[in-house]
Amino acid sequence: MADSINAADFVDGGRLWQRHVDMAAIGKVGETGVNRQAFSEEDIEARRLLADWARSLGLVSYADAIGNLFFRHQPASASGDAILTGSHMDSQPSGGRFDGIYGVLAGLEAIQAIIESDITVRRPLEVVAWSNEEGSRFAPGAMGSMVFTGFREIDGLIELTDSDGVTLRTALATTIEATPQAEHRDFGFPVHAYIEAHVEQGPVLEKAEKQIGVVTGIQGCRWFEIEVTGEARHAGSTPLGTRKDALQSAIRIIQALNELTEDATDITRFTVGRFDVYPDSPNTVAERVVFTVDLRHPASTKLQQLGDAIDAIARRHAEPCHATIMESFNHAPVEFDDLVTGTVATAADLLSLPAMPIVSGAFHDAMFLADHCPTGMIFVPSAEGISHHPDEFTHRDDLAAGARVLTESIVALIT
Amino acid sequence: MADSINAADFVDGGRLWQRHVDMAAIGKVGETGVNRQAFSEEDIEARRLLADWARSLGLVSYADAIGNLFFRHQPASASGDAILTGSHMDSQPSGGRFDGIYGVLAGLEAIQAIIESDITVRRPLEVVAWSNEEGSRFAPGAMGSMVFTGFREIDGLIELTDSDGVTLRTALATTIEATPQAEHRDFGFPVHAYIEAHVEQGPVLEKAEKQIGVVTGIQGCRWFEIEVTGEARHAGSTPLGTRKDALQSAIRIIQALNELTEDATDITRFTVGRFDVYPDSPNTVAERVVFTVDLRHPASTKLQQLGDAIDAIARRHAEPCHATIMESFNHAPVEFDDLVTGTVATAADLLSLPAMPIVSGAFHDAMFLADHCPTGMIFVPSAEGISHHPDEFTHRDDLAAGARVLTESIVALIT
Repeated sequence: MADSINAADFVDGGRLWQRHVDMAAIGKVGETGVNRQAFSEEDIEARRLLADWARSLGLVSYADAIGNLFFRHQPASASGDAILTGSHMDSQPSGGRFDGIYGVLAGLEAIQAIIESDITVRRPLEVVAWSNEEGSRFAPGAMGSMVFTGFREIDGLIELTDSDGVTLRTALATTIEATPQAEHRDFGFPVHAYIEAHVEQGPVLEKAEKQIGVVTGIQGCRWFEIEVTGEARHAGSTPLGTRKDALQSAIRIIQALNELTEDATDITRFTVGRFDVYPDSPNTVAERVVFTVDLRHPASTKLQQLGDAIDAIARRHAEPCHATIMESFNHAPVEFDDLVTGTVATAADLLSLPAMPIVSGAFHDAMFLADHCPTGMIFVPSAEGISHHPDEFTHRDDLAAGARVLTESIVALIT
Repeated sequence: MADSINAADFVDGGRLWQRHVDMAAIGKVGETGVNRQAFSEEDIEARRLLADWARSLGLVSYADAIGNLFFRHQPASASGDAILTGSHMDSQPSGGRFDGIYGVLAGLEAIQAIIESDITVRRPLEVVAWSNEEGSRFAPGAMGSMVFTGFREIDGLIELTDSDGVTLRTALATTIEATPQAEHRDFGFPVHAYIEAHVEQGPVLEKAEKQIGVVTGIQGCRWFEIEVTGEARHAGSTPLGTRKDALQSAIRIIQALNELTEDATDITRFTVGRFDVYPDSPNTVAERVVFTVDLRHPASTKLQQLGDAIDAIARRHAEPCHATIMESFNHAPVEFDDLVTGTVATAADLLSLPAMPIVSGAFHDAMFLADHCPTGMIFVPSAEGISHHPDEFTHRDDLAAGARVLTESIVALIT
């Protein structure tokens, strides 16, 4: 154990913070915002910077056809499948300085700490930057990890276009050319274990005053699009009794769904985030409303039961309008591997860092890796739970604490 | 009385219908839609066509500085202030074939019928086409009648720009130049009485199986803009108990306003027609919602009481978000003059047309004329209450019936 605690001690919080500062300068928006969308010039610049840092550590770089970047440390003592760690470098259009990039930089920091600690490394170590996790320029998100793990075929994605009409094929070619030293790698190579560090993007750790979240899994998620159709009428001359007001029907549906998803334990997550009214004119009764439902729960049966109830409720409460319900996404809850979860919990304990088990509310690349190899995640607190926003913030001590737990966890798996 | 019934008998339903068809060809969209916005090329073409018809009847044309067009019939027998009738020719961007234009064409038909009937005319008769009633290109609407009656000064409007950056000054100059034969007229000249024919734009007459609405007044109207501010958060990782969800707060406010405005008599009109969510993303809790309230009632005290209650209700139900309430428009109910209302009711009765008193739910130019001279309106049914839409429709018999009542009413005031 002396060895491993030694390695975590080589984590340099100042260096880790400075790398976040350097990365945040690429695509900087305002004081603290970042716009570094997948396969953009900014993404490419960030990839080059990461590759420079990896090269200075002597890591060997690889890229696959969807643009996932891998940096490998394989001393003579190492053999077998690699321990993989990392996350993504792309951001939301108006994102923050920590989402995604933290997992990549923490992974690099862990490998650097392990190299500097001079411990014996029995497995190859790799840090990965998955392509296009956010999906804001080319949907869907988590594209890199989905293609790597075989959830999606690259052939079905390559002709996608962004809002300027640029194809993914073109954007990808430019991106991959920008790191010519990276050798080509096939998708889906075997991995011994995957550990992803990430900011929580929620308020739970901060409220509980814990520095480390031992992520036990990712909640399941179902997305629905509900379209309510009524009749556009003049707001002044149409008595309420004769209206088919799509907005009022949509509100009744949402109220009924609020009741359906009511949960004293506050585990169920029900969100209507998009709500579009047509014609959206002050003096015209709404003819049509389209709104989304984002429903999440860590328990598979509960998620299924709640989601399956939506169709009938929406139809019933749409009266006198008409509702159509389309399910656009359905991902069952993911439970992470005990091997990795236990390793992370033990690492936090050994380092005497305040930790708690937590279920991830957001998706991560780890969601797809979990079907490919033993997988786990480490969360660090997000100030006020803010994410996908320039105000996103994690204290530098918390960033360092997460990197230490990651280092210790990797060491536990390779020594 | 024989004289007057004679005049109404000269109303030619076929001619009136054909003029609607000719006007609907200008700015035609699809089969039955019309896009003839104020001061556009289409508006100008419609003005020229109307001026041609008026010239062929021997009417003298005038235009004032806001582009209102007047066509005057003044035989030697006539003296004193004129009887004015008409409405507007501009349409909504996706409007129908009857809103506004019907009142202008019915006015022209009435004057033509009176001329053809050869009755003795004791007062000048004028048909007016008020400028820019819809306000879709340059807000506010009812611009022509507001400036004519002194509710607004033209100097405060003339530098307005449309969405292409064209000023009202430029658009107006082009419009007025297009009818060079029209002599200049000052605003606000004295008028003996104003009668405006219009399609109902609501379902009341059709439901009641009445051909004629004797409009007794126009409901009062108050507009509010309510802005609800919460916090944008990740839909997956933010427990509901910690959210400040602007959309859910907005829904609670609307529910409370539904209760406030509940009315078993179905007279109160409460509409939320615009509802805009920011950032409007499926997996982000809404940070901000802006929605409008359109509140109408024919009774002044009731309108005041309901409108004044909105601020406190919105603030209270916004919790844990924050609401700001802005009143953007407030017009008290208008009661039309008994002279005109009584004349219209008597005319419908004499012509044995099924009629009923009705309060206008929509604004009209008559709302502003009512403060200038004795004013009234005649409604004809709108099929299914549809208006501001290509499906807007009124049967040709109903158009003719309205024109006959208008003719008979004018005759009653000038013989």
